[in-house]
Amino acid sequence: MTFLEQKGVSPLMTHTASPPGAPDLSAVQLRVEAALREFLARKEQAAPGPETAPLFTTLRRLLASGKRLRAHLCVAGWHAGGGHQTSSMATAVAAALELFHAFALVHDDVMDASDTRRGHPSAHRALSSVYTAGGGPRSRSDAHGRSAAVLLGDLALVWSDELLHGGVDPSALARILPFVADMRDELVYGQYLDLLSTDRLSGDVEAALRVARYKTAKYTVERPLHIGAALAGAGPDILQTCSAFALPLGEAFQLRDDLLGVFGDPAETGKPVGDDIREGKATVLLALAVQRASGDDLRVLRMLVGRPDLAEEDILRVRALMEATGARERVEEMIRARRSAAVAALEQGPIHAAAAGALREIAQIATVRRS
Amino acid sequence: MTFLEQKGVSPLMTHTASPPGAPDLSAVQLRVEAALREFLARKEQAAPGPETAPLFTTLRRLLASGKRLRAHLCVAGWHAGGGHQTSSMATAVAAALELFHAFALVHDDVMDASDTRRGHPSAHRALSSVYTAGGGPRSRSDAHGRSAAVLLGDLALVWSDELLHGGVDPSALARILPFVADMRDELVYGQYLDLLSTDRLSGDVEAALRVARYKTAKYTVERPLHIGAALAGAGPDILQTCSAFALPLGEAFQLRDDLLGVFGDPAETGKPVGDDIREGKATVLLALAVQRASGDDLRVLRMLVGRPDLAEEDILRVRALMEATGARERVEEMIRARRSAAVAALEQGPIHAAAAGALREIAQIATVRRS
Repeated sequence: MTFLEQKGVSPLMTHTASPPGAPDLSAVQLRVEAALREFLARKEQAAPGPETAPLFTTLRRLLASGKRLRAHLCVAGWHAGGGHQTSSMATAVAAALELFHAFALVHDDVMDASDTRRGHPSAHRALSSVYTAGGGPRSRSDAHGRSAAVLLGDLALVWSDELLHGGVDPSALARILPFVADMRDELVYGQYLDLLSTDRLSGDVEAALRVARYKTAKYTVERPLHIGAALAGAGPDILQTCSAFALPLGEAFQLRDDLLGVFGDPAETGKPVGDDIREGKATVLLALAVQRASGDDLRVLRMLVGRPDLAEEDILRVRALMEATGARERVEEMIRARRSAAVAALEQGPIHAAAAGALREIAQIATVRRS
Repeated sequence: MTFLEQKGVSPLMTHTASPPGAPDLSAVQLRVEAALREFLARKEQAAPGPETAPLFTTLRRLLASGKRLRAHLCVAGWHAGGGHQTSSMATAVAAALELFHAFALVHDDVMDASDTRRGHPSAHRALSSVYTAGGGPRSRSDAHGRSAAVLLGDLALVWSDELLHGGVDPSALARILPFVADMRDELVYGQYLDLLSTDRLSGDVEAALRVARYKTAKYTVERPLHIGAALAGAGPDILQTCSAFALPLGEAFQLRDDLLGVFGDPAETGKPVGDDIREGKATVLLALAVQRASGDDLRVLRMLVGRPDLAEEDILRVRALMEATGARERVEEMIRARRSAAVAALEQGPIHAAAAGALREIAQIATVRRS
């Protein structure tokens, strides 16, 4: 199933022949998957021995279930920047972004101590079972799993870099490397700001939005678009329009994520409900609830948020407060406003109609999604 | 103080004018430090705000105290490969290797839960204090420190890559990238093999040597030499001699490390004695002790090794067994044999006298050191 079909969106541009300049996103998906498959097969052949097999199994499973949002944005950026057809360079770069994201997810799950990812055990859980199954003492299995996942994330990161450098010629590489560097730094900084604010209950909505800007708006949306556009040789006008579209959309994407983490259906999100609440993540949703809650309600939030051992009924209590304070509805409004701003930016900018159509479609999917 | 002076070695090649083709290692050190300083200043200026300052402070302190072994090997490789003077490319690559190693150390300390590194708190300990000092709850400070250190390691890794790509022209880059890719993979694989064997007491000396080969001989010695030599355009003969020198020397280096971890002086090593024993690290030293211990002694090893709560007297008991079984002396013999093999390889190969002299000096330092 393609990305668009999975999301229940009419596969407008995927099954008919593409008009010139329109990105064929389902073909992109197949090419990116083939590039990743081929790269990992080569890496596994060169690995020191059968002991490293669990690293490959775990990474492949993670890569198999992604939304490929960054790959699609990269290819849409490539078309927005004037790229025709989908070149092997655009495919290599898109595949590199997917591997980079696998790195980000594996380390994120270690940091958040999340047990599941995309409906499967997270990398550190999977790798910890390998250790005990292979005769390692159970007492060390959690620590082993975390360490092995740190290493697996490191591998995905260096491999993402290798894919990038192996698949792009020097002049194109020189155009995209500054954006790649920014993307990496912004992700790490965003994660660090996120960590610093975790478990310090606050009604500071602006601070929560700033974290979302780094770890999601820039990392997930703006930079993949920039990288694709710069690969095609886009000038400053197009890059600026990409930002004007990407930054509000990326915030909306993170706001949707925050809502799904609390109100989503675990069968669709692949994550248990309420992890953010247990962890005390400083989301915009939580900041709004704190800002709007009065006396007793605020005390309940202070008492429950950030406790790893919360029972389901506690989660439901916090959730009810997020509804009652109007925080949930306010976040929905913020998402709508940001999606509109993103789409409006496309109409005012110099991006040609076919690429803009693909971006509008991505905007819809990123903000209306259920997983 | 230069690297050579710190090690108490006669500063033969550092204070006199260098003959043509001889690497001036103290000048290398200054240039590498300047390159790192300038790079980090630029990065800090572009960082999102003052909250990220602890990442820079922690990284700078770690970089300030290194032995710069990889940088020296890289520059020695550059000279062995026919490079004259020290080019800005060789400096950039050597600095990139130092940053890469900072990444490796930060993640290694997280994985090993080591509290100190080079006489200072390890990165995760330092970052955890920043969190509590900044108002974060003490109950989360350990987890915060570990997560922040994972991120700091990630930053050092991507910055190492950025330094590399910013400082080397495309044709030279094409020559070194395959070796850089191998180095990264070998480090991560070595660490993973190390993890898998940790806390599974075994007398398998060959298995322990295999881990040392990946995580130290290839990563620490062979690849920095290869990268420097390839940067200068070395052909296969020189690269092969580099390997013939590096692999035995790298094993010897790791064997010395294992001895220092148990018998070294903490005031000189900057690490507490016995961490490897508490953690159950499958070192060659331990494997030999297990192999040679009889009945009661073996039971003592099984009871004590791998217990994080070992008291000093327990460490001394394990240490005494490592002496009594002859394991310590056998490791010293293995170091001597490997150093000789490394030096002999230099005599038989095509590396010119000045570069070979620098390599012999490094071989001496790497195996006779006390820290």
